[in-house]
Amino acid sequence: MNRGTYQKIEEYMLQMMKDSAHDSLHIYRVLYQALAIAESYSEINRDVLIASCLLHDIGRTAQFRDPSLCHAVEGGKMAYCFMKKLGWEEKLCVHIQDCITTHRFRTDNQPKTLEAKILFDADKLDITGALGIARSLVYEGEIGEPLYTTDENGRIQDGRSSREPDSFLKEYHFKLIRCYDTFYTKEAKLIAQKRKKLTEAFYNELMEEISLPDVGGLLKLIP
Amino acid sequence: MNRGTYQKIEEYMLQMMKDSAHDSLHIYRVLYQALAIAESYSEINRDVLIASCLLHDIGRTAQFRDPSLCHAVEGGKMAYCFMKKLGWEEKLCVHIQDCITTHRFRTDNQPKTLEAKILFDADKLDITGALGIARSLVYEGEIGEPLYTTDENGRIQDGRSSREPDSFLKEYHFKLIRCYDTFYTKEAKLIAQKRKKLTEAFYNELMEEISLPDVGGLLKLIP
Repeated sequence: MNRGTYQKIEEYMLQMMKDSAHDSLHIYRVLYQALAIAESYSEINRDVLIASCLLHDIGRTAQFRDPSLCHAVEGGKMAYCFMKKLGWEEKLCVHIQDCITTHRFRTDNQPKTLEAKILFDADKLDITGALGIARSLVYEGEIGEPLYTTDENGRIQDGRSSREPDSFLKEYHFKLIRCYDTFYTKEAKLIAQKRKKLTEAFYNELMEEISLPDVGGLLKLIP
Repeated sequence: MNRGTYQKIEEYMLQMMKDSAHDSLHIYRVLYQALAIAESYSEINRDVLIASCLLHDIGRTAQFRDPSLCHAVEGGKMAYCFMKKLGWEEKLCVHIQDCITTHRFRTDNQPKTLEAKILFDADKLDITGALGIARSLVYEGEIGEPLYTTDENGRIQDGRSSREPDSFLKEYHFKLIRCYDTFYTKEAKLIAQKRKKLTEAFYNELMEEISLPDVGGLLKLIP
């Protein structure tokens, strides 16, 4: 890929993601993480990988407008059309579409090619460690979700039950701590394992800090 | 203080803070943390402390509507009026107003009484450790502030310079890591010191995770 082509794809990505300016930093992290992992694989198609990384989240606006849509599937279709218009071969366009369609966590579409697995892993590394915690918390602020919830007796709910209202503690149990078992490449597994300690330490310390006696308003301390 | 009085103050607090439902959890943490610290001091006026803790943030809506106002000063006045209406002695109402007026970080009004110092410390403990990180990140999501920013060359800005745009990294350097030197009571200092390690570990790990080569879009990898 030459610089001109890269810039055309990058420009399209930025245009498609202009509603969520900060998210482009996520795209660049995924791109560079993917290229770092790809260093270990000589058989990789770097052009497919770069285009797939840059375009993997362009379907987010479509999903935001219509939550019944899947941003991976929509983004895959959009990327196919865009790369076709750039004049890329049908085979490469389909490959890019496949990578994007299968990059999502909690999906039935599993990545099959090496490029798809690397995109999946690089994207998932962004929900490990401090980055995963930080991105979850910022997102919770955006949508107005609390750190934790209390039950009708003012007791803290620890997020382990799917029946609890959504919260950061629930996100921890259902996504942040579960992602460590989902990687495909040994390079990503290694990076993830190093980051897991902080994820657990943060949760444990948060639980300790919020677990003051009686937090939540029930007042045994007044007779 | 009897249960009926407590419930009246609590009800008023919840009513004043109804725009920010999750923040009431902060109020209860501050209340219980303050009462835990107060256990070491026999000369404490528990009624003044409880009322001050419950009401310390009721001026936030006023400050939100008019950013030139200080929520501590406004909240102090509101608390004074409310406690007077409840029929409390002038001396106690003034004491509560003083506690609330001086609870704010980065202010010229320093807390003077023991009750004011304990409120200050309990409130500041909520920006230490995992809680401090979590609350900052949620707030950044609410107001649309990024985790970090990049300069015109795509290089990450580490948040140390006041000239940088606001970000979580800047909040870390200007607030989260600085608060550890501001406590008045030895009990709060001890709790804060235990939490400092995680604050630093989180920042260091986040820096490492985002410091991939070239993150931010400059592309040396394409000829």
